[in-house]
Amino acid sequence: MTRNEVTDLIIANKLRKKLKWAQLAEAVGYSKEWTTAALLGQMTLTAEQAAKVGAMLELPPEAVTQLQVVPYKGSLPTTVPTDPLIYRFYELISVYGITIKQLINEEFGDGIMSAIDFSMDITREPDPKGDRVHIVMSGKFLPYKTY
Amino acid sequence: MTRNEVTDLIIANKLRKKLKWAQLAEAVGYSKEWTTAALLGQMTLTAEQAAKVGAMLELPPEAVTQLQVVPYKGSLPTTVPTDPLIYRFYELISVYGITIKQLINEEFGDGIMSAIDFSMDITREPDPKGDRVHIVMSGKFLPYKTY
Amino acid sequence: MTRNEVTDLIIANKLRKKLKWAQLAEAVGYSKEWTTAALLGQMTLTAEQAAKVGAMLELPPEAVTQLQVVPYKGSLPTTVPTDPLIYRFYELISVYGITIKQLINEEFGDGIMSAIDFSMDITREPDPKGDRVHIVMSGKFLPYKTY
Amino acid sequence: MTRNEVTDLIIANKLRKKLKWAQLAEAVGYSKEWTTAALLGQMTLTAEQAAKVGAMLELPPEAVTQLQVVPYKGSLPTTVPTDPLIYRFYELISVYGITIKQLINEEFGDGIMSAIDFSMDITREPDPKGDRVHIVMSGKFLPYKTY
Amino acid sequence: MTRNEVTDLIIANKLRKKLKWAQLAEAVGYSKEWTTAALLGQMTLTAEQAAKVGAMLELPPEAVTQLQVVPYKGSLPTTVPTDPLIYRFYELISVYGITIKQLINEEFGDGIMSAIDFSMDITREPDPKGDRVHIVMSGKFLPYKTY
Amino acid sequence: MTRNEVTDLIIANKLRKKLKWAQLAEAVGYSKEWTTAALLGQMTLTAEQAAKVGAMLELPPEAVTQLQVVPYKGSLPTTVPTDPLIYRFYELISVYGITIKQLINEEFGDGIMSAIDFSMDITREPDPKGDRVHIVMSGKFLPYKTY
Amino acid sequence: MTRNEVTDLIIANKLRKKLKWAQLAEAVGYSKEWTTAALLGQMTLTAEQAAKVGAMLELPPEAVTQLQVVPYKGSLPTTVPTDPLIYRFYELISVYGITIKQLINEEFGDGIMSAIDFSMDITREPDPKGDRVHIVMSGKFLPYKTY
Amino acid sequence: MTRNEVTDLIIANKLRKKLKWAQLAEAVGYSKEWTTAALLGQMTLTAEQAAKVGAMLELPPEAVTQLQVVPYKGSLPTTVPTDPLIYRFYELISVYGITIKQLINEEFGDGIMSAIDFSMDITREPDPKGDRVHIVMSGKFLPYKTY
Amino acid sequence: MTRNEVTDLIIANKLRKKLKWAQLAEAVGYSKEWTTAALLGQMTLTAEQAAKVGAMLELPPEAVTQLQVVPYKGSLPTTVPTDPLIYRFYELISVYGITIKQLINEEFGDGIMSAIDFSMDITREPDPKGDRVHIVMSGKFLPYKTY
Amino acid sequence: MTRNEVTDLIIANKLRKKLKWAQLAEAVGYSKEWTTAALLGQMTLTAEQAAKVGAMLELPPEAVTQLQVVPYKGSLPTTVPTDPLIYRFYELISVYGITIKQLINEEFGDGIMSAIDFSMDITREPDPKGDRVHIVMSGKFLPYKTY
Repeated sequence: MTRNEVTDLIIANKLRKKLKWAQLAEAVGYSKEWTTAALLGQMTLTAEQAAKVGAMLELPPEAVTQLQVVPYKGSLPTTVPTDPLIYRFYELISVYGITIKQLINEEFGDGIMSAIDFSMDITREPDPKGDRVHIVMSGKFLPYKTY
Repeated sequence: MTRNEVTDLIIANKLRKKLKWAQLAEAVGYSKEWTTAALLGQMTLTAEQAAKVGAMLELPPEAVTQLQVVPYKGSLPTTVPTDPLIYRFYELISVYGITIKQLINEEFGDGIMSAIDFSMDITREPDPKGDRVHIVMSGKFLPYKTY
Repeated sequence: MTRNEVTDLIIANKLRKKLKWAQLAEAVGYSKEWTTAALLGQMTLTAEQAAKVGAMLELPPEAVTQLQVVPYKGSLPTTVPTDPLIYRFYELISVYGITIKQLINEEFGDGIMSAIDFSMDITREPDPKGDRVHIVMSGKFLPYKTY
Repeated sequence: MTRNEVTDLIIANKLRKKLKWAQLAEAVGYSKEWTTAALLGQMTLTAEQAAKVGAMLELPPEAVTQLQVVPYKGSLPTTVPTDPLIYRFYELISVYGITIKQLINEEFGDGIMSAIDFSMDITREPDPKGDRVHIVMSGKFLPYKTY
Repeated sequence: MTRNEVTDLIIANKLRKKLKWAQLAEAVGYSKEWTTAALLGQMTLTAEQAAKVGAMLELPPEAVTQLQVVPYKGSLPTTVPTDPLIYRFYELISVYGITIKQLINEEFGDGIMSAIDFSMDITREPDPKGDRVHIVMSGKFLPYKTY
Repeated sequence: MTRNEVTDLIIANKLRKKLKWAQLAEAVGYSKEWTTAALLGQMTLTAEQAAKVGAMLELPPEAVTQLQVVPYKGSLPTTVPTDPLIYRFYELISVYGITIKQLINEEFGDGIMSAIDFSMDITREPDPKGDRVHIVMSGKFLPYKTY
Repeated sequence: MTRNEVTDLIIANKLRKKLKWAQLAEAVGYSKEWTTAALLGQMTLTAEQAAKVGAMLELPPEAVTQLQVVPYKGSLPTTVPTDPLIYRFYELISVYGITIKQLINEEFGDGIMSAIDFSMDITREPDPKGDRVHIVMSGKFLPYKTY
Repeated sequence: MTRNEVTDLIIANKLRKKLKWAQLAEAVGYSKEWTTAALLGQMTLTAEQAAKVGAMLELPPEAVTQLQVVPYKGSLPTTVPTDPLIYRFYELISVYGITIKQLINEEFGDGIMSAIDFSMDITREPDPKGDRVHIVMSGKFLPYKTY
Repeated sequence: MTRNEVTDLIIANKLRKKLKWAQLAEAVGYSKEWTTAALLGQMTLTAEQAAKVGAMLELPPEAVTQLQVVPYKGSLPTTVPTDPLIYRFYELISVYGITIKQLINEEFGDGIMSAIDFSMDITREPDPKGDRVHIVMSGKFLPYKTY
Repeated sequence: MTRNEVTDLIIANKLRKKLKWAQLAEAVGYSKEWTTAALLGQMTLTAEQAAKVGAMLELPPEAVTQLQVVPYKGSLPTTVPTDPLIYRFYELISVYGITIKQLINEEFGDGIMSAIDFSMDITREPDPKGDRVHIVMSGKFLPYKTY
């Protein structure tokens, strides 16, 4: 059973059992963002967490074991994503990439925003002209080490 | 004078005159994020805005005119960005792409977060363990039209 | 059962039962363009719509469920399509892309034509020199938000 | 003087002289769509047409000559366009490509919509919820020859 | 049963039954070039033609049905073909592409040679210094429509 | 002076002096196909041939010398050609590639059609339904050597 | 049974039966280089040769038949080979490619070294500083035909 | 003056002064293969060698200095070479790559043929059926270190 | 059973039997780095080594045999690795590539660091500010042979 | 003056003035690895450091200013490096990538080795069988944040 097959099984069973990502996150004890990523093969669960979601999703033991193994990450089938929802984020990097770099470097100096010591929060922002997707990202600034 | 040459000139003169993006944004009257993107060839200024930043940056009239023209957008030289700061954002899409899609679709239904009716705010988040880059994105949810 | 397998099954059964896309669209209650896209894994049906086409196409319950899930979109196997019919549309973008951009930007200012708040109508245009394919596209103009 | 330099010159002079594509099209005697494409290096003008727009745009004789030569076509710098306005059309092909093929083949049999015996009309469609871009495409259906 | 599986079955059965493409073409009633393309998943047979070759090749009913459906075209697994015989044709386009364009445009004006209203004939050309492959291509010239 | 600059100069001067490829071919003493390819940087002229076309095209001595040097071949700027006229030939290989291979291998055995010991003839084929482009290719069959 | 499956079977059985390529070549009656290429799906055996190696390798009749069919050639899974042994040859072309071209063209004029009328011999070259791989390639020079 | 400009100058001056690569190699004191590669920007000359060829080719001092600097290697403009002469070598790797690997690994065990401790000799092999290009490659076998 | 299937089986069984790479390396008698690479299909074991790890991992005889065969190397599914841990090494080459080349060439002259006569050691480097990954690479310098 | 032009100037002047990277590093006060990367456009100098190396390398003021600006990083012209010395490092990632990941994850858990809080030391390792390149890399382990 490959990790991709575990992911497919999770999606299928979640659908069948009408579970929400937030419910699974509650069982795991972390945010819905981190938990969803973990269940989609991008993060690593502890034995206890894996057992809990395994029970909720009726996963076989082999799948529960796999959820505790560090996965080979990267969730997209193509270099430039074809799905319109995901592409919009790629487009934001394309349009705003140099802008983001200029502003972070001007404020912090040479370095990066970590994608590892990182958290994200996605919520609905009510708006009379149409609700908005509200995303907060927080990543530790890592200055380039000099040596 | 091509638009890329205008961008190069803006970066060089900004450097020489020791201006900050936030100062230029104040003259334009919009956020530092939007203004930086505009000056880097991704958004379009009004005649008045272009005149103001043109004066601050000592741009020739031809460059001031070009800032008022809708540019061909996309600021990166390669499909997968090589600069580590920008790459981290590409990596976030790669690792979290499907997660973001699952959460937005579960909350809003089928549709996308607009990258056009969109704003972004980048700030420093003080943290005793090392300051963090704090990014807030807000994009209108656009449901797929049925017809 | 993956979404691609659902799509293959729909195409096979439609062929076997000699159904037309327009007949399926009638059951769904939307246009033949939207319905075909939905059945080919690009749009999302309601439970009622899925049940109706599921019955017409003799789909198993699992497939009927999948039709109600937001799919990962993008229907083509290669970045540049090899099928001549579809390639002609890619060619139109290649030849007319900058033209379309110039004309829309000149008329509307900086922004895009939405591909989400969008509808399309494909009909036969009789012509003594050979009938023509007549396509009408209508997408909401979205101006770039300034902030 | 290469054809790309002619195109750059046309865009620069059009900007400086504040001409609209529709005004240039009137001089050429064809639609704004065809004329814009021609001036952007995708179609071929007659000597008379080239002389007229050359005068309006104050082009040197060498540029006027080049406008009468069949160009090497294709107006985009990358395989997948980065400009958001143009990308939306690429996305429409990605999402609707198979749908378009199914509907045309079902109606007309095996063949293509010509991108050569083709015309396009782009207009503003007033709409209280926000004006729309209205595009009509008409291409001759070409059945695959059997032999 | 996918179209690729139909193609594999045709090749396997043709081999087993020691049939020549020309014999299958005779049954279809068209040239060996068109018939081979059709049986390899690039053209569409009528019900009668499909029944005839189905019988000769002992194809199951499902395969016979598939031969009557317009296929997704494009027969090569890579953008640049690796097979030496097929690559030589790609090389001819690479070396002679601009030449062909110059000569056709000089003779006919702006337009293309149709790849749809097209026929091809491949024969052996006896030659004392070594027989030659003789290929005749005939495609309708399609002038760019002006409008 | 690079070979590309020689090619650009030839095209520009041919245009200015209103010469046809067939006229230049007559001076060279070979077909219009081979001569055009040579002048576009794909074949190699003798000193005498280079001098003749150099005079007709008013080329500087350096360019005349370059025409006698074996060029680095390949005339197209992208792997998949964007120009519609040239793309149609790429499409023919995509659609008919396996067909051509099957028919040549069935007739000649394992080997290729040479693209070196090769000639091509492009003519206008009058047709009441619209003139056709008629292309005859002749390449020596080269069987795979066994050893 | 696809050709790739035949190749896999040959490699597996050769391993199990502890046969050397040279032994199989002896049965075929050609060199170890040509025979290995043939058994790996790049050349075509006669019925007699196929029967002999089929017996040695205990291949099923279907595989023996396939070895007599001209294969779709090209043995590598990626455009730039990842295997270090094979990559070194790619690197030699990258580093020495223009050198080889210059030397062959200077000696022979415009043309190529045939990869069809070609033979190769790989042997061990004893050397006190470490044995060397000794490869001799011999390909017919093919001058570009003028016409 | 970049290294590419040095290479262009060497090719131009060699052409103007009608020098052969073998004559330059004699001055350098190495083979024509190594010397040609060095002058085309792939190997590094000593001061004495650079001075000698600099004098023969009338290179400026800056170019003579550059010839003594280790270059960034790789002589081809595209991943898959378009020039037919060079492509044939790429094709040989594609067709024979796995064969070469099998034979070297069977004879020597796990390791590679060095492309650094490597020499090559290109000569004309007279043949009544047409002269042949004869290439001898010799590379040290390097076994994979175990540790 | 393909080599990839052997690799999958090894990873699954190692997980099930809770073995560490270092334990497997002890059985093999080499370092954990070399052994892990070998078990992941990049190096070649002796019969004795394969038997030992085969017993520990409960591999079938066929898998034990495959571990003794030289594999087709290259362990990553994409040209640019998507996994963040592995990507960081790709990024180091991107950022430091020319630096490494300059420093090695300045110290050693023209040549390379061997990736075959190579060893690597990965250890934990305790650090109060957070432990570090400590990697030592040692590769034989190979000077370019002159000839 | 672009950053690439600054880099070219630094390389040219370093060559002309016969400076070693270690000498420039001494002036900067950091290691030769960091300093070389900085001068090749990958790191950022302080005003004082830039002034010192500017004086040593006789750089114009504009170049000295640019050395203090955070650069757009990535030093290689192609995705897969063509230079053999640099390619060997790419190959090591290809061959050992999964091995490195397995060993780091097994030792540290889920996370990465930082390429930002990172240092590298390249030295000559004398060896009677041929000196070796010795590279020590040290990067902080960054565990994936859970949230």
